[in-house]
Amino acid sequence: MKEFFKVTDLEHTLKYSAVFPNVGTEFITLHEALGRILADDIVSDINLPDFARSTMDGYAVKASSTFGATEESPAYLTVKGTVEMGKPAAFSIKSGEVARISTGGMLPDGSDSVIMVEYTEVIDKKNIEIYRSVAPGQHVLQIGEDLKEGNNVLLCGQKLRPQEIGLLAALGKDSVKVYKKPVIGIISTGDEIIPINNMPDKGRIRDINTYTLSSLVQKAGGIPVTYGIVGDDFDALLEKCSIAIAHSDMVLISGGSSVGTRDLTVEVLSSLPDSDIMVHGISISPGKPTILARAGDKAIWGLPGHVLSAMIVFGIVIRPFIEKISGLSPQYKKELRIPALLSRNISSAQGRIDYIRVRLIEKNGIEWAEPVLGKSGLISNLTKADGLIEIGINTEGLDKGSKVWVIPV
Amino acid sequence: MKEFFKVTDLEHTLKYSAVFPNVGTEFITLHEALGRILADDIVSDINLPDFARSTMDGYAVKASSTFGATEESPAYLTVKGTVEMGKPAAFSIKSGEVARISTGGMLPDGSDSVIMVEYTEVIDKKNIEIYRSVAPGQHVLQIGEDLKEGNNVLLCGQKLRPQEIGLLAALGKDSVKVYKKPVIGIISTGDEIIPINNMPDKGRIRDINTYTLSSLVQKAGGIPVTYGIVGDDFDALLEKCSIAIAHSDMVLISGGSSVGTRDLTVEVLSSLPDSDIMVHGISISPGKPTILARAGDKAIWGLPGHVLSAMIVFGIVIRPFIEKISGLSPQYKKELRIPALLSRNISSAQGRIDYIRVRLIEKNGIEWAEPVLGKSGLISNLTKADGLIEIGINTEGLDKGSKVWVIPV
Repeated sequence: MKEFFKVTDLEHTLKYSAVFPNVGTEFITLHEALGRILADDIVSDINLPDFARSTMDGYAVKASSTFGATEESPAYLTVKGTVEMGKPAAFSIKSGEVARISTGGMLPDGSDSVIMVEYTEVIDKKNIEIYRSVAPGQHVLQIGEDLKEGNNVLLCGQKLRPQEIGLLAALGKDSVKVYKKPVIGIISTGDEIIPINNMPDKGRIRDINTYTLSSLVQKAGGIPVTYGIVGDDFDALLEKCSIAIAHSDMVLISGGSSVGTRDLTVEVLSSLPDSDIMVHGISISPGKPTILARAGDKAIWGLPGHVLSAMIVFGIVIRPFIEKISGLSPQYKKELRIPALLSRNISSAQGRIDYIRVRLIEKNGIEWAEPVLGKSGLISNLTKADGLIEIGINTEGLDKGSKVWVIPV
Repeated sequence: MKEFFKVTDLEHTLKYSAVFPNVGTEFITLHEALGRILADDIVSDINLPDFARSTMDGYAVKASSTFGATEESPAYLTVKGTVEMGKPAAFSIKSGEVARISTGGMLPDGSDSVIMVEYTEVIDKKNIEIYRSVAPGQHVLQIGEDLKEGNNVLLCGQKLRPQEIGLLAALGKDSVKVYKKPVIGIISTGDEIIPINNMPDKGRIRDINTYTLSSLVQKAGGIPVTYGIVGDDFDALLEKCSIAIAHSDMVLISGGSSVGTRDLTVEVLSSLPDSDIMVHGISISPGKPTILARAGDKAIWGLPGHVLSAMIVFGIVIRPFIEKISGLSPQYKKELRIPALLSRNISSAQGRIDYIRVRLIEKNGIEWAEPVLGKSGLISNLTKADGLIEIGINTEGLDKGSKVWVIPV
């Protein structure tokens, strides 16, 4: 009988990520910062705005000058002048006076609110009438109302989206300290694997995994470095592995699909200096024959050879490890999962988590998750899927209409 | 009274995207292809696999040799040899014979199925017993079962995810024809705007929009080229605009927030050779004072100065235009929208589509969309949002508990 390795469950496997240290940090320009992970808390060194700022086009005014103004009984006010954009007014506003102001303009001394141009009528060059009253502070952004000097506004470990980039621009941070992108070495193994620019002889297959894994590493914020294909040869794999580890923050060995290649990978990983095999098999399907080893302070993975299995293991298991060493804080790992209803019954084995490819289909305002059928090795089927659903370890299957959470792929 | 421009509704605005031609195409290596848009249909020039391939570790066999085998009454079979990975077997299989085979191995002539190693027992070097029968074709991927020679497997206009990259690798496409990334020129205007590495005097504000828009362009698959800040000056803006148009596929002018700057932008856009103003105001909020002009065959946008408004207009209106000229087919524009329940009542004006920032919060398996409160100009609030919800043009508001679709930001 085949030897069954003792599998580790997913939760325990994911906990091992804490073992591996974060990559180093670097300074980059703000233009390069999209999608990067902050390596410092950001404290605001200014009040934003640092002047009372109009949020409307209209007239700056003392609110008390407008009290009681209505359509039937407008208030008459004197125009003191115009606030130019980008500078303080040279005058101040007293009771009964207004100043023309644009959105973004700085309120003149003495004024405390803005009356929208829509509720005013020009009488002559020096006088307007207004049809509404305003409250003190209306249509005004107060000093520090957006950002207060001394406040923590972004946190170390936060991923930078366009809006966070905007906030950094507002603070004048043209350079930001971020975690480096982790370098992920990728090795393909298996006697049957050939470079993709070759035409396969009978029995051989092109090296798909180097390309899918490289793409997945890029999507996860890493830098893929590919080390080509190694046959089922202990010395060759050990040598390639040692080189990859020396130059990477993590290494992925995409195993040939045969049990021989898997065994060889385990042997090689066990032979590396200061190494141990942390996980030999995970209770997920597909993806069970996954190996996690440690060499020094770096993680090395033995991945299943099937492209679908390798992709699922990457998304479910390896990506969280890459995010960990990238410095991403757990609170910013918010994963997008789309609730949907299952379109048909699915059976599943207990004792493992099953991942099923699904297509998302909206019918009458209801989002359905429709399993993509077909043998699991088919790359063509993968391109038809929008996401994965998870069937829990203690679940025998799910009925049509069950609520599921779809993980986009 | 202020002049009210005649606004265009969102649907009509989006239809104008058809006016603008796709960018050109280029060949890139497969390693660079993630996220790019295919510019050719891909036809499979091979069968994948092009040999009958085992999907399990076990023994290749004629299914008929296994019929009737059970735990109680196993079948005894002779081991003819081992299938080596990556090559055809030198022997063939007759009735009563098997060959050791690994996942991915090529079935020897005469065999039609694989019996999993779990259901076998080794008797001696030459003989095994098996406890189950297999059906013809079981655990075998047939020739062309994944991809058939001559079939269209990917379509022009399709965006390349890791799984499509894998499929291209399987076909040996180490170079692919894709649409170029559109170059998007970005100009900031307004006398109050200063470069971010300056400390703002009273009344001035740093150039946030150049950075948020650059990031959004990158996320949308474009290449941002920034042209700095231009004051409220007709000649200066016209000159900068002409340069940007000459070097870009589309131009974004992020208006200062004042009505004066907006008017200036319209004047400049109207003065460009072979130009017309297609849209002057869109019935959405925020984002109403958006301008779309055509100069030659390029789109030029006048965007509101408020960072929140500019970001929303980008996501809702401009991104679809960038996707159009990027060659992305409508069928691949599938947008991820997350269904959720609204956590509180929201009012809205009729006659426009309102976009409300929300945070996503899961409570007891239900996803809630919680509006992020605060004045709309606050960049700090933007960083707290996970997405936007849309309140339709004929809706006065939504009640707590209403079903909404969240657009991730």
